[in-house]
Amino acid sequence: MDRTSKVKMVTAATALGMFGAAAAIAQDKYALRTPSGIAFSDFKGYEDWAVISSARTDEVLKVIVGNSVIVKAYKAGIPGNGRPFPEGSKLVKLQWKPKKSTEAPFVVDVPDVFSQAFVMEKNSARFPTTGGWGYALFNYETASDKFTADPSPADCGHACHVAVKGKDYIFHPYQKR
Amino acid sequence: MDRTSKVKMVTAATALGMFGAAAAIAQDKYALRTPSGIAFSDFKGYEDWAVISSARTDEVLKVIVGNSVIVKAYKAGIPGNGRPFPEGSKLVKLQWKPKKSTEAPFVVDVPDVFSQAFVMEKNSARFPTTGGWGYALFNYETASDKFTADPSPADCGHACHVAVKGKDYIFHPYQKR
Repeated sequence: MDRTSKVKMVTAATALGMFGAAAAIAQDKYALRTPSGIAFSDFKGYEDWAVISSARTDEVLKVIVGNSVIVKAYKAGIPGNGRPFPEGSKLVKLQWKPKKSTEAPFVVDVPDVFSQAFVMEKNSARFPTTGGWGYALFNYETASDKFTADPSPADCGHACHVAVKGKDYIFHPYQKR
Repeated sequence: MDRTSKVKMVTAATALGMFGAAAAIAQDKYALRTPSGIAFSDFKGYEDWAVISSARTDEVLKVIVGNSVIVKAYKAGIPGNGRPFPEGSKLVKLQWKPKKSTEAPFVVDVPDVFSQAFVMEKNSARFPTTGGWGYALFNYETASDKFTADPSPADCGHACHVAVKGKDYIFHPYQKR
């Protein structure tokens, strides 16, 4: 190996190392897929989706957003009109751990750190045994700034949502605003 | 007056009556304007805007949404990078009175009725004495299905937001999701 080749190899290795470091910093969360086969990329763009509803427990502040398919369906009266949500309907429940605001002039809980994206998608061919809905959970850790696909059966997925089968498995109505 | 004229008059009066009834049912909320001059129509389309953040007090569940101008600004690092939000930035805080869910298999607060849209818009020429921001409150009553422009100085407007002047008067960061 001549000197030029060695320099090229070192340069290439350094470039790979830098690339690896960059990859560690900026995760491609959309490459994630649950063991059950739900890809996070099915929900690409959810960051900018419109609000469906909100909720809160002692543990989390929640905002439920939906893609244009389900928002249009809600506005057309589904599921109150007895019709099911159309194929391609997608929901993401954004969940943050709360903290007390130290800035507001009144007592108010605000998001501390993001903890989870709970997702649902309607695809009757793919999910025939669960009312046509697929459920998954993508967890987020602030320390590593990384999402992971939850390997367990989706937290409170079909087993919970079957309680509202009459509303096509969705608890929340499209909230007035 | 002949019979035909009488029939025409009755028909016209009936039509007016029906129009009046229809108007009572479907309010044009975007015709509202506060005494301070902020038009609800400045925020047209907020129903579908993207989520900035969330919050809750014992009285209300809140979701803060923003127009494309402010969402783009947040994503570019404003206000953390020391730059102010651009002209045309608009925020709407959606506020619902909460209730305990009677359907979920765990204890969770969900929206009961919508109560208020708190709005902010950046227009330095129009609002030079309040940091460039205009504040207003549009109240909603479920019984009448109507919004009204709050006549009082905007609830917790500049007087509150001046506490976070260093963040260009906005309490909430763009939340991770």
